[in-house]
Amino acid sequence: MINVLFAALPARWDEFAPHLRSAFDAAGLEVELRQDFAPAEVDYIVYAPNGDLQDFTPYTRCKAVLSLWAGVEQIVTNETLTQPLCRMVDPGLTQAMVEWVTGHVLRYHLGIDANLANQTTWDPVAPPLAQDRHIGILGLGALGAACGQALAQLGFNVHGWSRTEKQIEGLTCHHGDAGLHATLRRSEILTLLLPDTAATTHVLNAETLALMPKGACILNPGRGPLIDDTALLAALDSGQIAHATLDVFRVEPLPAENPYWAHPNVTVTPHIAAATRASTAAGVIAENIHRAEAGAPLHHLVDRTRGY
Amino acid sequence: MINVLFAALPARWDEFAPHLRSAFDAAGLEVELRQDFAPAEVDYIVYAPNGDLQDFTPYTRCKAVLSLWAGVEQIVTNETLTQPLCRMVDPGLTQAMVEWVTGHVLRYHLGIDANLANQTTWDPVAPPLAQDRHIGILGLGALGAACGQALAQLGFNVHGWSRTEKQIEGLTCHHGDAGLHATLRRSEILTLLLPDTAATTHVLNAETLALMPKGACILNPGRGPLIDDTALLAALDSGQIAHATLDVFRVEPLPAENPYWAHPNVTVTPHIAAATRASTAAGVIAENIHRAEAGAPLHHLVDRTRGY
Ligand SMILES: NC(=O)c1ccc[n+]([C@@H]2O[C@H](COP(=O)([O-])OP(=O)(O)OC[C@H]3O[C@@H](n4cnc5c(N)ncnc54)[C@H](OP(=O)(O)O)[C@@H]3O)[C@@H](O)[C@H]2O)c1
Ligand SMILES: NC(=O)c1ccc[n+]([C@@H]2O[C@H](COP(=O)([O-])OP(=O)(O)OC[C@H]3O[C@@H](n4cnc5c(N)ncnc54)[C@H](OP(=O)(O)O)[C@@H]3O)[C@@H](O)[C@H]2O)c1
Repeated sequence: MINVLFAALPARWDEFAPHLRSAFDAAGLEVELRQDFAPAEVDYIVYAPNGDLQDFTPYTRCKAVLSLWAGVEQIVTNETLTQPLCRMVDPGLTQAMVEWVTGHVLRYHLGIDANLANQTTWDPVAPPLAQDRHIGILGLGALGAACGQALAQLGFNVHGWSRTEKQIEGLTCHHGDAGLHATLRRSEILTLLLPDTAATTHVLNAETLALMPKGACILNPGRGPLIDDTALLAALDSGQIAHATLDVFRVEPLPAENPYWAHPNVTVTPHIAAATRASTAAGVIAENIHRAEAGAPLHHLVDRTRGY
Repeated sequence: MINVLFAALPARWDEFAPHLRSAFDAAGLEVELRQDFAPAEVDYIVYAPNGDLQDFTPYTRCKAVLSLWAGVEQIVTNETLTQPLCRMVDPGLTQAMVEWVTGHVLRYHLGIDANLANQTTWDPVAPPLAQDRHIGILGLGALGAACGQALAQLGFNVHGWSRTEKQIEGLTCHHGDAGLHATLRRSEILTLLLPDTAATTHVLNAETLALMPKGACILNPGRGPLIDDTALLAALDSGQIAHATLDVFRVEPLPAENPYWAHPNVTVTPHIAAATRASTAAGVIAENIHRAEAGAPLHHLVDRTRGY
């Protein structure tokens, strides 16, 4: 019997437990799944932030902590965590992000907000074709690469940026400091899909925003700290940045007094770009436990020194 | 020397003439392109509605009338036209339509209008995935098929309807009366890409709108007469149809007093879904003249009895 602790918001238990149980069954795993165990009896932890679990020290038998979230910034910095940590990479999550990013890129590309705002005058202006539009993506991991490829498939010119050198079909890939500049200079519409780490904090700041084409648009479905908020608000006010759609924030829910809510050139979405879906994520968790039990290397291991 | 008459709005001459001339050169055709000729001297007519040309009788030598528009309802019913008529099928036009349809389908799918309207409260509701959403397309020609395939590529379930039986990869194809019902019953988001003919007039009417799932959304980048406007307004008021985005209308520009402008659940766009672009359309015209001169069958011939 494998003991799996569900350590997420208790409110998510009813949604996740049946999917996890059937995924364990399907993987041929004999699992006891519960929200409470004596720590020393736990074999695996299924984890999401905002639950009670803060101290991993007493989980002495635990072979892996399996995050339900793709972003692990809230746990990777926990000094009591010595167990292997895996992040969530899930086809359902990736698909949701592709849909959100593609939808908002096309919204900017086609000028849909202006269409919605103008419901009085017939003023035909055709947008350029995707082939004449340059899109930038910062972060070419599971999510950034999939979004970039979907946009390239639609005909856009896509430039992407990652830490290490990459080759991804259909995309022009850049890396390193020079690569960041090359990407930003071309990005009429820029999407942030970097993890939140010490190295990515404020990747968009006064200096880097100034590199972008005047009137560029920004999508942030990554993490709030990627953006220097003061610099973005200044760039929105000056017109250097025409519009931003922000799904993630330093503090969530975004406080009522935050200036993003009221800014005419900002759309706030409430961290919905790509929610983890129990139906698809359960299989990812089960497969990783199956691998660990069979002595195979875990999938999607987080590198604690890199922070993602 | 081949005499080609440019019979479109004179305002379009400056945009089209240079592209047509270089396309004729590239095709190795010796062409005299002008806006005026003695009718009996004209070999080909490049045509768009809204110009002066109404009577095709005196163009006795004319081997083909080549439409700059994909929709030919304004010329196909002209009884003086005895010359072969070709409509516009152009990769640039198709690409523009794919972008417009995909953008507005994703806008509905993701609930972007609600995101834009709610800029005060944090209320996370994740949309379903594309794989759980059914899209319908009426018309599976050059444009409908391309839009359907782009949506299928993004993961949507796409059902389409045409006059004759079809097989298109990634789409479920229906035809005939029973096929219309099967398509409408499933269409949470429906796109109209039929030509305007006697057989397609009011394809969306009180009866067919009632077949759709309650709260469905409609995109009409096809032609205005496809919709019984009175029935659509009633369906919007009852909530049977949640929202419509209309690019084409019986009368264009849409008159200021038309109720669509003011309706809270209608977005009007000013016939911009897919404008003919001189840069790409010129090559299509040149290729067809090249074919005719070489004795090859014309591309995209309109069948006058079908009306498209
Ligand atoms: N809004 C939402 O609903 C939502 C949902 C899921 C995820 N997210 C966010 O999306 C982020 C990305 O997820 P993912 O699954 O794609 O992560 P991932 O697979 O780990 O990819 C991260 C990418 O960022 C690059 N990167 C990291 N540090 C960098 C640096 N210092 N300079 C340049 N590039 C750097 C990586 O480069 P290398 O390839 O060279 O390593 C990699 O390409 C998550 O961390 C999370 O914050 C948001
Ligand atoms: N808004 C804009 O900017 C814009 C731009 C370009 C075009 N358009 C409109 O889009 C329309 C479609 O263009 P296209 O190039 O795709 O045309 P197309 O290639 O001729 O395709 C027309 C499609 O409609 C189907 N159809 C015609 N009559 C039908 C009927 N009675 N019942 C069922 N299906 C029927 C045809 O069926 P079969 O395949 O069986 O023949 C075909 O699949 C044009 O006619 C034009 O009105 C609008």
